[in-house]
Amino acid sequence: MRSLRKTVLLAILVSVVLVLALLHSWPTRTYTTVDVWQRPGPSVERHLEERLPELDHRLSNIPFHVRDSVASLLARNGCICEGESGGVNLPFAQLLFPRVSAHPLHTAFEASELEEMKRRRAKEYKSFQKRSKTPADVLIIAEANSPLQYPTQGVEVRPLKTIIIPGLALHDLPRDHYSINITATLGTLNVAAEVDGVKIKGDGEMHMSLSSSLLPNLNRQLQFVTYTNTLFHPSTADTVQFETEGHQAVFSVKIRHGVTPKLYNTGSKGDYNVSALVTIATKTFLRYDKLQDLIDSVRRYYPTVTIVIADDSENPKTMSGPYIEHYIMPFGKGWFAGRNLAVSQVTTKYVLWVDDDFIFTANTKLEKLVDVLEKTTLDLVGGAVREATGYTATYRQTISIEPGEEDGDCLHMRRGFHHVIQGFPNCVVTDGVINFFLARTDKVQQVGFDPRLARVAHLEFFIDGLGSLHVGSCDDVIVNHATKIRLPWVSQSESDKTYAKFRYPPASSDATHTKNGLLFFKNRFQCLTRN
Amino acid sequence: MRSLRKTVLLAILVSVVLVLALLHSWPTRTYTTVDVWQRPGPSVERHLEERLPELDHRLSNIPFHVRDSVASLLARNGCICEGESGGVNLPFAQLLFPRVSAHPLHTAFEASELEEMKRRRAKEYKSFQKRSKTPADVLIIAEANSPLQYPTQGVEVRPLKTIIIPGLALHDLPRDHYSINITATLGTLNVAAEVDGVKIKGDGEMHMSLSSSLLPNLNRQLQFVTYTNTLFHPSTADTVQFETEGHQAVFSVKIRHGVTPKLYNTGSKGDYNVSALVTIATKTFLRYDKLQDLIDSVRRYYPTVTIVIADDSENPKTMSGPYIEHYIMPFGKGWFAGRNLAVSQVTTKYVLWVDDDFIFTANTKLEKLVDVLEKTTLDLVGGAVREATGYTATYRQTISIEPGEEDGDCLHMRRGFHHVIQGFPNCVVTDGVINFFLARTDKVQQVGFDPRLARVAHLEFFIDGLGSLHVGSCDDVIVNHATKIRLPWVSQSESDKTYAKFRYPPASSDATHTKNGLLFFKNRFQCLTRN
Repeated sequence: MRSLRKTVLLAILVSVVLVLALLHSWPTRTYTTVDVWQRPGPSVERHLEERLPELDHRLSNIPFHVRDSVASLLARNGCICEGESGGVNLPFAQLLFPRVSAHPLHTAFEASELEEMKRRRAKEYKSFQKRSKTPADVLIIAEANSPLQYPTQGVEVRPLKTIIIPGLALHDLPRDHYSINITATLGTLNVAAEVDGVKIKGDGEMHMSLSSSLLPNLNRQLQFVTYTNTLFHPSTADTVQFETEGHQAVFSVKIRHGVTPKLYNTGSKGDYNVSALVTIATKTFLRYDKLQDLIDSVRRYYPTVTIVIADDSENPKTMSGPYIEHYIMPFGKGWFAGRNLAVSQVTTKYVLWVDDDFIFTANTKLEKLVDVLEKTTLDLVGGAVREATGYTATYRQTISIEPGEEDGDCLHMRRGFHHVIQGFPNCVVTDGVINFFLARTDKVQQVGFDPRLARVAHLEFFIDGLGSLHVGSCDDVIVNHATKIRLPWVSQSESDKTYAKFRYPPASSDATHTKNGLLFFKNRFQCLTRN
Repeated sequence: MRSLRKTVLLAILVSVVLVLALLHSWPTRTYTTVDVWQRPGPSVERHLEERLPELDHRLSNIPFHVRDSVASLLARNGCICEGESGGVNLPFAQLLFPRVSAHPLHTAFEASELEEMKRRRAKEYKSFQKRSKTPADVLIIAEANSPLQYPTQGVEVRPLKTIIIPGLALHDLPRDHYSINITATLGTLNVAAEVDGVKIKGDGEMHMSLSSSLLPNLNRQLQFVTYTNTLFHPSTADTVQFETEGHQAVFSVKIRHGVTPKLYNTGSKGDYNVSALVTIATKTFLRYDKLQDLIDSVRRYYPTVTIVIADDSENPKTMSGPYIEHYIMPFGKGWFAGRNLAVSQVTTKYVLWVDDDFIFTANTKLEKLVDVLEKTTLDLVGGAVREATGYTATYRQTISIEPGEEDGDCLHMRRGFHHVIQGFPNCVVTDGVINFFLARTDKVQQVGFDPRLARVAHLEFFIDGLGSLHVGSCDDVIVNHATKIRLPWVSQSESDKTYAKFRYPPASSDATHTKNGLLFFKNRFQCLTRN
């Protein structure tokens, strides 16, 4: 019995040892930690700025004469909130000679809350800057007379993947020994192939050296240098240093996923199939009669196009019918909330925005607008809206932002456009248009209509779209506007009165949700000028 | 009388002449036309590719030995749709040793429609490429031993504005005469100041020359060279050529508006005010009992946080209560349509996504998730969902795209994460998480939930977010999942049966609106591999 017990104990002991050995050798993936805290930029950025050429200072005693016509076009330090002064003060002066007016935006806030708002805005802006700055935007100056050849633009790697760095070479004067160093910060360097006569040190690390007594061999080796991203980030850039004795070059390797396309099915081939390509979107509030007129007019020309309706009326009616999608919102939730809702539901390539009091006519040829977006790089194209009087408006606006300092930027809006579009003589390129437009669904959804804007708002969408949307406007596609003229002998209906109360409201309680409060806080503007 | 008539005629003649003169001199703004058609890239791009150094070919006779460990990491030409073969075929093998499976995506389509789908997809993709390519991504190699000094990165101008081009200089050997040329294509060149002894030609045009016999004077003049964008585009780059005899350099000037911030008010200072910072969003369908359980559980811990509910049930019940926003959709409109609707209505800095059958507990500390997003550059952080069994899931997924050729790209999804987050030991960086997450509202709205996905879908949101969203996951913030286990003795309610019919549906009629059809068409994938 005793020997049996001993054997059993021994067997148990051996098993335990084996299990421990197995656990020990089990391949574990080591996950390095990553620092994603919102901190100031890496030291490389500061290092670069110190390296701006010394030559600048040696030339400072050579005199120059300022050319005002050009120098006045350069951005100033900060922006000033001013309009145009003077001008003729006649009754119709503003119509004939629209003057530029300037609106300081801090006035959206009570004096008592302004300091707190500025403090919060500055804090949010600082975080935003840390999240949106990338090393790929830092100024880099290429040194003259450097024997180094290297790529200055266009080097990209997908996160955690490997590429060959193109274009590296050394064109040095003859010498006994040639060597280069290459250093990265978010990845490692290596070689995809080895060339005889070249000594490699630090391959697989963040700092690699190559040296040889034969320059052609070193250059052949340089054709096989690889970069592997090891510190994960979905969209950033690594600043790579490439050096030889006495010379240093710096370039960026962009680290990002490619741009994934978001394509839409277009329906049968041949002519433009408007029902397959376009969804009509609108928002309604207490105006079912006008809404029904709109729908009836659309159906005369486009019987099967889908119409999406966002509705925040108090006692919503059921709107039904083929190709009608009706969405009910909390009462009075708001104008831009409704617009954002409607476009969020669109599944076709294009979305046509209409107001609920528009009327389609024989001049409302959507195929023309589709043609513009199919053939150009525009993302959105506005049409024209005809009032009962016959007056037709396209409401074209150009928008620009002048950078400011701590007080914020200045927003400038002017009536007009930039250029006529080649091949479409009735169409122009601009930045903002009237509320009748066809647009790429994915671009409109990406920009969005800020649901914080509950009541009056229009150009805020185009301000949010600056830089993302390529905007056009054509004056030969026209929709009618059901009359807004209040005839004195026609009494206002109850719903008309409630509508007016919401449409033209008194000041809101939450100042950052008003138009000017939002421009001040959300977009960090200090001033708006317009004509 | 005759002389009077003469005077009148003379007066009329003079007036006519004056009016004509006035009209003639009326300042008219000349609008140049702009070509925004979808055409192949400018000739400069092809020109650059031809200029890749000749040296490459002279070295081709120097032999090399491939280093497989590195060369195998490089992208292949096209991607192959294959999973892992072999492996143990035991009952729980997939759980313990998850094998990678590969899914060709063209199978979403009937054989009869596949060719047409491929044709349409290729056409849409071609347009997409023309719209998204920018000269700022083209490969540029800096020439070695060039006397030219110039900026290689970081030069930006707002559309139609003017900047000084920084860092231009000539470091030539002594000679009698020095000259440089500078050429742009989307703007004009000029000087902000004039320096004695320098001859300027072509200032104000697209091609400008500067020459001098004094090198310091030429370099001083080069400090004042300006670029003015004249051809409007909201987001592009001009490729500028800078030359002197025997040498040429090329660099990009980015033409774009700055990134306009989209900041949110955060409520009173001090500790995290969850009601001011967070809105809870969910979608419901035929499960009002579960939805009410969710709401009740939320209210125990967060009595005033706003809950947005998108509801596409057949006979929607009225959901009311303080801080409840209930949206009614067309019946069965769909899962991602509902998600897109709900997030489109959020007005706070963060949005918390929950499914309608979650239950908040004392472990559901939203403040922890807010802390992560406030302190890091993450855009979204997932939590953990605990089943009735006690099993808690974070569903972390890494996602990468391998570029393919005409057939499309390959999408690779693997369980796991990239790194642990410094300072947050319970949190990691990954690409996809479970359906319980806190995120920046502006980023989620920008990515969106594609309303074409009517039924089952989850990671499609993270695929669409690749490159935009910096995603994290923490396992110490836990929400409970109301049980899904169907106990055999409990009969299924009517609404449960209808729910099951929609939740686990047969194949859809529109193939591009199925999960695989959408990956194939919209995102241009040919293959999905996952484990």
